[in-house]
Amino acid sequence: MYTLYSMQRSGNSYKVRLALARLGIPYKLVEVDILKGESRTPEFLAKNPSGQVPLLEVAPERYLAESNAILWYVAGGSVLAPEDRIVRAEALQWMFFEQHSLEPNIGAAYFWIALIKGGRELQSHAIEDWMENGYRALGVMEKHLARHPYFVGPHFTIADIALYAYTHVAEQCDFDLTRFPAIRAWLDRIQSEPGYVTMDWQPQPLALAQ
Amino acid sequence: MYTLYSMQRSGNSYKVRLALARLGIPYKLVEVDILKGESRTPEFLAKNPSGQVPLLEVAPERYLAESNAILWYVAGGSVLAPEDRIVRAEALQWMFFEQHSLEPNIGAAYFWIALIKGGRELQSHAIEDWMENGYRALGVMEKHLARHPYFVGPHFTIADIALYAYTHVAEQCDFDLTRFPAIRAWLDRIQSEPGYVTMDWQPQPLALAQ
Repeated sequence: MYTLYSMQRSGNSYKVRLALARLGIPYKLVEVDILKGESRTPEFLAKNPSGQVPLLEVAPERYLAESNAILWYVAGGSVLAPEDRIVRAEALQWMFFEQHSLEPNIGAAYFWIALIKGGRELQSHAIEDWMENGYRALGVMEKHLARHPYFVGPHFTIADIALYAYTHVAEQCDFDLTRFPAIRAWLDRIQSEPGYVTMDWQPQPLALAQ
Repeated sequence: MYTLYSMQRSGNSYKVRLALARLGIPYKLVEVDILKGESRTPEFLAKNPSGQVPLLEVAPERYLAESNAILWYVAGGSVLAPEDRIVRAEALQWMFFEQHSLEPNIGAAYFWIALIKGGRELQSHAIEDWMENGYRALGVMEKHLARHPYFVGPHFTIADIALYAYTHVAEQCDFDLTRFPAIRAWLDRIQSEPGYVTMDWQPQPLALAQ
Protein backbone atom coordinates (compact mmCIF):
# COMPACT_ATOMS: atom_id res chain seq x y z
CA MET A 1 0.00 0.00 0.00
CA TYR A 2 1.21 3.49 -0.82
CA THR A 3 2.19 5.92 1.91
CA LEU A 4 1.41 9.53 0.99
CA TYR A 5 3.21 12.35 2.81
CA SER A 6 0.81 15.25 2.43
CA MET A 7 -0.34 18.49 4.01
CA GLN A 8 -4.11 18.76 4.24
CA ARG A 9 -4.27 22.41 3.12
CA SER A 10 -1.65 22.08 0.36
CA GLY A 11 -3.15 22.26 -3.12
CA ASN A 12 -0.29 20.20 -4.53
CA SER A 13 -0.98 17.46 -1.96
CA TYR A 14 -4.72 17.66 -2.63
CA LYS A 15 -4.14 16.76 -6.29
CA VAL A 16 -2.83 13.35 -5.27
CA ARG A 17 -5.55 12.75 -2.68
CA LEU A 18 -8.19 13.63 -5.30
CA ALA A 19 -6.70 11.25 -7.89
CA LEU A 20 -6.36 8.39 -5.39
CA ALA A 21 -9.97 8.89 -4.23
CA ARG A 22 -11.26 8.95 -7.80
CA LEU A 23 -9.33 5.79 -8.62
CA GLY A 24 -10.41 4.07 -5.39
CA ILE A 25 -6.83 3.33 -4.38
CA PRO A 26 -6.29 2.89 -0.61
CA TYR A 27 -3.23 4.49 0.99
CA LYS A 28 -1.74 5.46 4.29
CA LEU A 29 -1.75 9.21 4.89
CA VAL A 30 1.02 10.94 6.85
CA GLU A 31 0.37 14.61 7.62
CA VAL A 32 3.46 16.82 7.23
CA ASP A 33 2.92 20.37 8.47
CA ILE A 34 5.26 22.50 6.40
CA LEU A 35 4.25 25.55 8.45
CA LYS A 36 5.90 23.85 11.45
CA GLY A 37 9.03 22.95 9.46
CA GLU A 38 8.17 19.26 9.29
CA SER A 39 9.30 19.03 5.64
CA ARG A 40 12.76 20.38 6.54
CA THR A 41 13.77 17.81 9.16
CA PRO A 42 16.76 15.56 8.41
CA GLU A 43 14.40 12.55 8.34
CA PHE A 44 12.15 14.12 5.73
CA LEU A 45 15.00 15.55 3.65
CA ALA A 46 16.48 12.04 3.47
CA LYS A 47 13.24 11.00 1.74
CA ASN A 48 12.92 14.13 -0.44
CA PRO A 49 15.96 16.42 -0.76
CA SER A 50 13.66 19.14 -2.15
CA GLY A 51 11.88 19.28 1.22
CA GLN A 52 8.40 19.39 -0.29
CA VAL A 53 5.07 17.61 -0.08
CA PRO A 54 3.41 15.68 -1.57
CA LEU A 55 5.76 12.72 -1.52
CA LEU A 56 4.66 9.19 -2.36
CA GLU A 57 6.42 6.08 -1.08
CA VAL A 58 5.78 3.82 -4.07
CA ALA A 59 7.73 0.86 -2.70
CA PRO A 60 9.72 0.44 0.51
CA GLU A 61 12.27 3.29 0.62
CA ARG A 62 11.46 4.35 -2.97
CA TYR A 63 10.01 7.86 -3.03
CA LEU A 64 8.44 9.92 -5.78
CA ALA A 65 8.16 13.73 -5.49
CA GLU A 66 6.47 16.48 -7.54
CA SER A 67 2.67 16.37 -7.48
CA ASN A 68 2.17 16.18 -11.24
CA ALA A 69 4.72 13.36 -11.64
CA ILE A 70 2.91 11.48 -8.85
CA LEU A 71 -0.37 11.95 -10.75
CA TRP A 72 1.12 10.26 -13.83
CA TYR A 73 2.37 7.40 -11.68
CA VAL A 74 -0.79 6.67 -9.71
CA ALA A 75 -3.10 7.19 -12.70
CA GLY A 76 -0.89 5.30 -15.19
CA GLY A 77 -2.98 2.79 -17.10
CA SER A 78 -6.30 4.37 -16.02
CA VAL A 79 -8.73 6.55 -17.96
CA LEU A 80 -7.34 9.59 -16.14
CA ALA A 81 -3.95 9.36 -17.89
CA PRO A 82 -4.08 9.68 -21.69
CA GLU A 83 -1.42 7.57 -23.40
CA ASP A 84 -1.89 8.55 -27.05
CA ARG A 85 1.33 10.38 -27.92
CA ILE A 86 -0.13 13.76 -28.90
CA VAL A 87 -2.88 13.72 -26.27
CA ARG A 88 -0.34 12.80 -23.59
CA ALA A 89 1.84 15.69 -24.72
CA GLU A 90 -1.15 18.07 -24.54
CA ALA A 91 -1.93 16.88 -20.99
CA LEU A 92 1.72 17.46 -20.08
CA GLN A 93 1.59 20.90 -21.69
CA TRP A 94 -1.20 21.94 -19.33
CA MET A 95 0.49 20.34 -16.33
CA PHE A 96 3.76 22.18 -16.99
CA PHE A 97 1.74 25.36 -17.52
CA GLU A 98 0.16 24.71 -14.10
CA GLN A 99 3.51 24.41 -12.34
CA HIS A 100 5.10 27.30 -14.20
CA SER A 101 2.31 29.85 -14.62
CA LEU A 102 -0.53 29.05 -12.20
CA GLU A 103 0.87 27.48 -9.02
CA PRO A 104 3.73 29.95 -8.48
CA ASN A 105 1.16 32.77 -8.53
CA ILE A 106 -2.19 31.53 -7.18
CA GLY A 107 -0.41 28.94 -5.02
CA ALA A 108 1.86 31.59 -3.53
CA ALA A 109 -1.07 33.97 -2.94
CA TYR A 110 -3.05 31.14 -1.33
CA PHE A 111 -0.14 30.21 0.92
CA TRP A 112 0.52 33.73 2.18
CA ILE A 113 -3.04 35.12 2.20
CA ALA A 114 -5.11 32.07 3.21
CA LEU A 115 -2.65 30.05 5.29
CA ILE A 116 -0.18 32.45 6.93
CA LYS A 117 -1.51 34.87 9.50
CA GLY A 118 -0.25 38.32 8.54
CA GLY A 119 0.93 37.01 5.17
CA ARG A 120 -0.80 39.79 3.24
CA GLU A 121 1.41 42.33 5.00
CA LEU A 122 4.58 40.19 4.96
CA GLN A 123 4.38 39.69 1.19
CA SER A 124 2.79 42.98 0.17
CA HIS A 125 5.61 43.67 -2.35
CA ALA A 126 4.99 40.38 -4.18
CA ILE A 127 1.20 40.09 -4.14
CA GLU A 128 0.72 42.52 -7.02
CA ASP A 129 2.91 40.37 -9.30
CA TRP A 130 1.10 37.19 -8.22
CA MET A 131 -2.27 38.76 -8.98
CA GLU A 132 -1.19 40.04 -12.39
CA ASN A 133 0.45 36.76 -13.43
CA GLY A 134 -2.31 34.67 -11.85
CA TYR A 135 -4.99 36.56 -13.80
CA ARG A 136 -2.96 36.09 -16.99
CA ALA A 137 -2.89 32.31 -16.38
CA LEU A 138 -6.63 32.29 -15.65
CA GLY A 139 -7.17 34.15 -18.92
CA VAL A 140 -5.34 31.42 -20.86
CA MET A 141 -7.46 28.75 -19.12
CA GLU A 142 -10.72 30.65 -19.73
CA LYS A 143 -9.94 30.91 -23.44
CA HIS A 144 -9.45 27.13 -23.66
CA LEU A 145 -12.45 26.21 -21.50
CA ALA A 146 -14.75 28.47 -23.49
CA ARG A 147 -14.38 25.92 -26.32
CA HIS A 148 -13.67 22.65 -24.51
CA PRO A 149 -15.31 20.90 -21.52
CA TYR A 150 -11.97 19.69 -20.11
CA PHE A 151 -8.33 20.52 -20.70
CA VAL A 152 -7.53 17.48 -22.83
CA GLY A 153 -10.03 15.54 -24.91
CA PRO A 154 -13.67 14.99 -23.98
CA HIS A 155 -13.07 13.53 -20.49
CA PHE A 156 -11.79 14.45 -17.06
CA THR A 157 -8.03 13.68 -16.79
CA ILE A 158 -5.11 14.33 -14.46
CA ALA A 159 -4.55 17.61 -16.36
CA ASP A 160 -7.87 18.81 -14.90
CA ILE A 161 -6.90 17.59 -11.44
CA ALA A 162 -3.60 19.48 -11.63
CA LEU A 163 -5.25 22.75 -12.67
CA TYR A 164 -8.24 22.37 -10.34
CA ALA A 165 -6.23 22.28 -7.11
CA TYR A 166 -5.23 25.94 -6.97
CA THR A 167 -7.96 27.33 -9.23
CA HIS A 168 -10.69 26.16 -6.83
CA VAL A 169 -9.12 28.10 -3.93
CA ALA A 170 -8.39 31.24 -5.97
CA GLU A 171 -11.29 33.14 -4.42
CA GLN A 172 -9.87 32.44 -0.95
CA CYS A 173 -6.86 34.55 -1.90
CA ASP A 174 -8.52 37.57 -3.49
CA PHE A 175 -8.94 36.42 -7.11
CA ASP A 176 -12.33 37.38 -8.55
CA LEU A 177 -13.65 34.63 -10.81
CA THR A 178 -16.88 36.40 -11.84
CA ARG A 179 -15.35 37.32 -15.21
CA PHE A 180 -14.30 33.72 -15.90
CA PRO A 181 -17.61 31.93 -16.59
CA ALA A 182 -16.04 28.99 -18.43
CA ILE A 183 -13.67 28.35 -15.52
CA ARG A 184 -16.57 28.45 -13.05
CA ALA A 185 -18.58 25.97 -15.13
CA TRP A 186 -15.52 23.69 -15.30
CA LEU A 187 -15.07 23.88 -11.50
CA ASP A 188 -18.71 22.78 -11.16
CA ARG A 189 -18.19 19.91 -13.62
CA ILE A 190 -15.23 18.61 -11.66
CA GLN A 191 -17.17 18.74 -8.40
CA SER A 192 -19.80 16.53 -10.05
CA GLU A 193 -17.27 13.89 -11.12
CA PRO A 194 -17.69 10.46 -9.53
CA GLY A 195 -15.25 9.96 -6.67
CA TYR A 196 -14.83 13.69 -6.10
CA VAL A 197 -13.61 14.61 -2.62
CA THR A 198 -13.07 18.05 -1.11
CA MET A 199 -9.72 19.35 0.10
CA ASP A 200 -10.81 18.70 3.72
CA TRP A 201 -11.63 15.06 3.09
CA GLN A 202 -9.42 12.39 4.60
CA PRO A 203 -9.38 8.68 3.83
CA GLN A 204 -10.66 6.26 6.43
CA PRO A 205 -7.68 5.16 8.56
CA LEU A 206 -7.55 1.85 6.74
CA ALA A 207 -3.85 1.51 7.16
CA LEU A 208 -4.12 1.53 10.94
CA ALA A 209 -6.06 -1.70 10.84
CA GLN A 210 -3.51 -3.48 8.64
CA MET B 1 7.95 18.31 -41.18
CA TYR B 2 7.75 20.05 -37.84
CA THR B 3 7.96 23.83 -37.58
CA LEU B 4 9.67 24.99 -34.38
CA TYR B 5 9.12 28.53 -33.13
CA SER B 6 12.20 29.18 -31.06
CA MET B 7 14.52 31.88 -29.76
CA GLN B 8 18.18 31.05 -30.27
CA ARG B 9 19.29 32.24 -26.81
CA SER B 10 16.31 30.76 -24.92
CA GLY B 11 17.26 27.76 -22.79
CA ASN B 12 13.73 26.40 -23.04
CA SER B 13 13.93 26.56 -26.85
CA TYR B 14 17.41 25.01 -26.83
CA LYS B 15 16.03 21.89 -25.09
CA VAL B 16 13.91 21.12 -28.14
CA ARG B 17 16.69 21.90 -30.65
CA LEU B 18 19.04 19.62 -28.70
CA ALA B 19 16.52 16.75 -28.65
CA LEU B 20 15.70 17.10 -32.36
CA ALA B 21 19.40 17.16 -33.24
CA ARG B 22 20.12 14.09 -31.13
CA LEU B 23 17.20 12.25 -32.72
CA GLY B 24 18.17 13.38 -36.23
CA ILE B 25 14.73 14.81 -36.90
CA PRO B 26 14.64 17.58 -39.54
CA TYR B 27 12.50 20.65 -38.89
CA LYS B 28 11.87 24.17 -40.03
CA LEU B 29 13.13 26.77 -37.57
CA VAL B 30 11.34 30.11 -37.09
CA GLU B 31 13.18 32.60 -34.90
CA VAL B 32 10.91 34.53 -32.51
CA ASP B 33 12.67 37.35 -30.69
CA ILE B 34 10.83 37.71 -27.40
CA LEU B 35 13.01 40.71 -26.54
CA LYS B 36 11.38 42.51 -29.49
CA GLY B 37 7.87 41.44 -28.45
CA GLU B 38 7.51 38.93 -31.28
CA SER B 39 5.84 36.39 -28.95
CA ARG B 40 3.15 38.90 -28.00
CA THR B 41 1.79 39.72 -31.46
CA PRO B 42 -1.83 38.78 -32.25
CA GLU B 43 -0.55 36.26 -34.82
CA PHE B 44 1.67 34.50 -32.32
CA LEU B 45 -0.88 34.62 -29.49
CA ALA B 46 -3.36 32.92 -31.83
CA LYS B 47 -0.89 30.02 -32.00
CA ASN B 48 0.05 30.05 -28.29
CA PRO B 49 -2.14 32.08 -25.89
CA SER B 50 0.65 31.86 -23.28
CA GLY B 51 2.85 33.95 -25.57
CA GLN B 52 5.94 31.81 -25.07
CA VAL B 53 8.56 29.92 -27.04
CA PRO B 54 9.30 27.17 -27.80
CA LEU B 55 6.19 26.23 -29.71
CA LEU B 56 6.02 23.23 -32.05
CA GLU B 57 3.60 22.93 -34.95
CA VAL B 58 3.07 19.19 -34.86
CA ALA B 59 0.52 19.13 -37.66
CA PRO B 60 -1.01 21.94 -39.75
CA GLU B 61 -2.52 24.43 -37.28
CA ARG B 62 -1.96 22.08 -34.30
CA TYR B 63 0.47 23.60 -31.83
CA LEU B 64 2.18 22.21 -28.75
CA ALA B 65 3.67 24.52 -26.10
CA GLU B 66 5.80 24.04 -22.95
CA SER B 67 9.34 22.87 -23.64
CA ASN B 68 9.20 19.74 -21.48
CA ALA B 69 5.88 18.60 -22.99
CA ILE B 70 7.41 19.07 -26.45
CA LEU B 71 10.38 16.90 -25.39
CA TRP B 72 7.99 14.06 -24.48
CA TYR B 73 6.26 14.43 -27.84
CA VAL B 74 9.31 14.52 -30.11
CA ALA B 75 11.19 11.85 -28.15
CA GLY B 76 8.15 9.56 -27.66
CA GLY B 77 9.07 6.01 -28.68
CA SER B 78 12.83 6.73 -28.68
CA VAL B 79 15.50 5.76 -26.14
CA LEU B 80 15.40 9.32 -24.78
CA ALA B 81 11.86 8.90 -23.34
CA PRO B 82 11.53 6.17 -20.69
CA GLU B 83 8.13 4.47 -20.83
CA ASP B 84 8.32 2.13 -17.84
CA ARG B 85 5.74 3.49 -15.41
CA ILE B 86 8.00 4.26 -12.45
CA VAL B 87 10.97 5.38 -14.55
CA ARG B 88 8.69 7.66 -16.57
CA ALA B 89 7.38 9.15 -13.34
CA GLU B 90 10.94 9.72 -12.10
CA ALA B 91 11.83 11.48 -15.36
CA LEU B 92 8.71 13.63 -14.97
CA GLN B 93 9.63 14.36 -11.34
CA TRP B 94 12.93 15.86 -12.46
CA MET B 95 11.29 17.75 -15.34
CA PHE B 96 8.68 19.33 -13.05
CA PHE B 97 11.48 20.12 -10.59
CA GLU B 98 13.27 21.86 -13.46
CA GLN B 99 10.28 24.05 -14.33
CA HIS B 100 9.41 24.79 -10.72
CA SER B 101 12.76 25.08 -8.93
CA LEU B 102 15.54 25.57 -11.49
CA GLU B 103 14.21 27.52 -14.49
CA PRO B 104 12.35 30.24 -12.53
CA ASN B 105 15.63 31.03 -10.74
CA ILE B 106 18.59 30.32 -13.04
CA GLY B 107 16.44 31.00 -16.11
CA ALA B 108 15.33 34.36 -14.71
CA ALA B 109 18.90 35.27 -13.71
CA TYR B 110 20.14 34.25 -17.18
CA PHE B 111 17.44 36.32 -18.87
CA TRP B 112 18.09 39.50 -16.90
CA ILE B 113 21.85 39.23 -16.39
CA ALA B 114 23.03 37.62 -19.64
CA LEU B 115 20.40 38.78 -22.15
CA ILE B 116 19.05 42.16 -20.99
CA LYS B 117 21.38 45.12 -20.98
CA GLY B 118 21.12 46.74 -17.57
CA GLY B 119 19.13 43.80 -16.23
CA ARG B 120 21.34 43.39 -13.17
CA GLU B 121 20.30 46.86 -12.01
CA LEU B 122 16.66 46.57 -13.15
CA GLN B 123 16.12 43.36 -11.18
CA SER B 124 18.48 43.98 -8.26
CA HIS B 125 15.69 43.32 -5.75
CA ALA B 126 14.97 39.87 -7.17
CA ILE B 127 18.46 38.57 -7.97
CA GLU B 128 19.23 37.64 -4.36
CA ASP B 129 16.18 35.34 -4.24
CA TRP B 130 17.06 33.79 -7.61
CA MET B 131 20.61 33.09 -6.43
CA GLU B 132 19.49 31.56 -3.13
CA ASN B 133 16.78 29.39 -4.71
CA GLY B 134 18.98 28.54 -7.71
CA TYR B 135 21.79 27.32 -5.45
CA ARG B 136 19.27 25.24 -3.48
CA ALA B 137 18.13 23.56 -6.71
CA LEU B 138 21.76 22.96 -7.75
CA GLY B 139 22.33 21.37 -4.34
CA VAL B 140 19.51 18.90 -4.91
CA MET B 141 20.92 18.06 -8.35
CA GLU B 142 24.49 17.67 -7.01
CA LYS B 143 23.29 15.24 -4.35
CA HIS B 144 21.63 13.07 -7.00
CA LEU B 145 24.48 13.24 -9.51
CA ALA B 146 27.06 12.31 -6.87
CA ARG B 147 25.50 8.83 -6.95
CA HIS B 148 24.10 8.54 -10.48
CA PRO B 149 25.54 9.30 -13.95
CA TYR B 150 22.26 10.69 -15.27
CA PHE B 151 18.99 11.84 -13.72
CA VAL B 152 17.00 8.72 -14.57
CA GLY B 153 18.44 5.27 -15.08
CA PRO B 154 21.84 4.54 -16.63
CA HIS B 155 21.35 6.52 -19.85
CA PHE B 156 20.93 10.05 -21.16
CA THR B 157 17.21 10.97 -21.35
CA ILE B 158 15.01 14.01 -21.91
CA ALA B 159 15.20 14.62 -18.14
CA ASP B 160 18.90 15.39 -18.63
CA ILE B 161 18.13 17.62 -21.62
CA ALA B 162 15.57 19.57 -19.57
CA LEU B 163 17.98 20.16 -16.68
CA TYR B 164 21.01 20.78 -18.89
CA ALA B 165 19.56 23.80 -20.70
CA TYR B 166 19.77 26.33 -17.87
CA THR B 167 22.45 24.57 -15.77
CA HIS B 168 24.98 24.87 -18.59
CA VAL B 169 24.52 28.66 -18.73
CA ALA B 170 24.51 29.16 -14.94
CA GLU B 171 28.06 30.53 -14.92
CA GLN B 172 27.01 33.19 -17.45
CA CYS B 173 24.69 34.62 -14.79
CA ASP B 174 26.96 34.64 -11.73
CA PHE B 175 26.44 31.10 -10.38
CA ASP B 176 29.72 29.53 -9.23
CA LEU B 177 29.79 25.82 -10.09
CA THR B 178 33.20 25.07 -8.55
CA ARG B 179 31.55 23.52 -5.51
CA PHE B 180 29.36 21.23 -7.64
CA PRO B 181 31.84 18.67 -9.06
CA ALA B 182 29.18 16.08 -9.87
CA ILE B 183 27.18 18.65 -11.86
CA ARG B 184 30.31 19.70 -13.77
CA ALA B 185 31.14 16.07 -14.63
CA TRP B 186 27.53 15.55 -15.80
CA LEU B 187 27.71 18.69 -18.01
CA ASP B 188 30.86 17.20 -19.59
CA ARG B 189 29.12 13.85 -20.13
CA ILE B 190 26.24 15.50 -21.93
CA GLN B 191 28.58 17.47 -24.19
CA SER B 192 30.14 14.12 -25.21
CA GLU B 193 26.79 12.56 -26.15
CA PRO B 194 26.37 11.68 -29.84
CA GLY B 195 24.34 14.30 -31.65
CA TYR B 196 25.17 17.01 -29.12
CA VAL B 197 24.81 20.55 -30.46
CA THR B 198 25.58 23.83 -28.74
CA MET B 199 23.02 26.52 -28.03
CA ASP B 200 24.38 28.56 -30.96
CA TRP B 201 23.92 25.74 -33.45
CA GLN B 202 21.27 26.04 -36.12
CA PRO B 203 19.98 23.33 -38.43
CA GLN B 204 20.81 23.53 -42.10
CA PRO B 205 18.00 25.42 -43.84
CA LEU B 206 16.59 22.19 -45.21
CA ALA B 207 13.06 23.46 -45.15
CA LEU B 208 13.81 26.29 -47.55
CA ALA B 209 14.63 23.77 -50.27
CA GLN B 210 11.37 21.87 -49.84
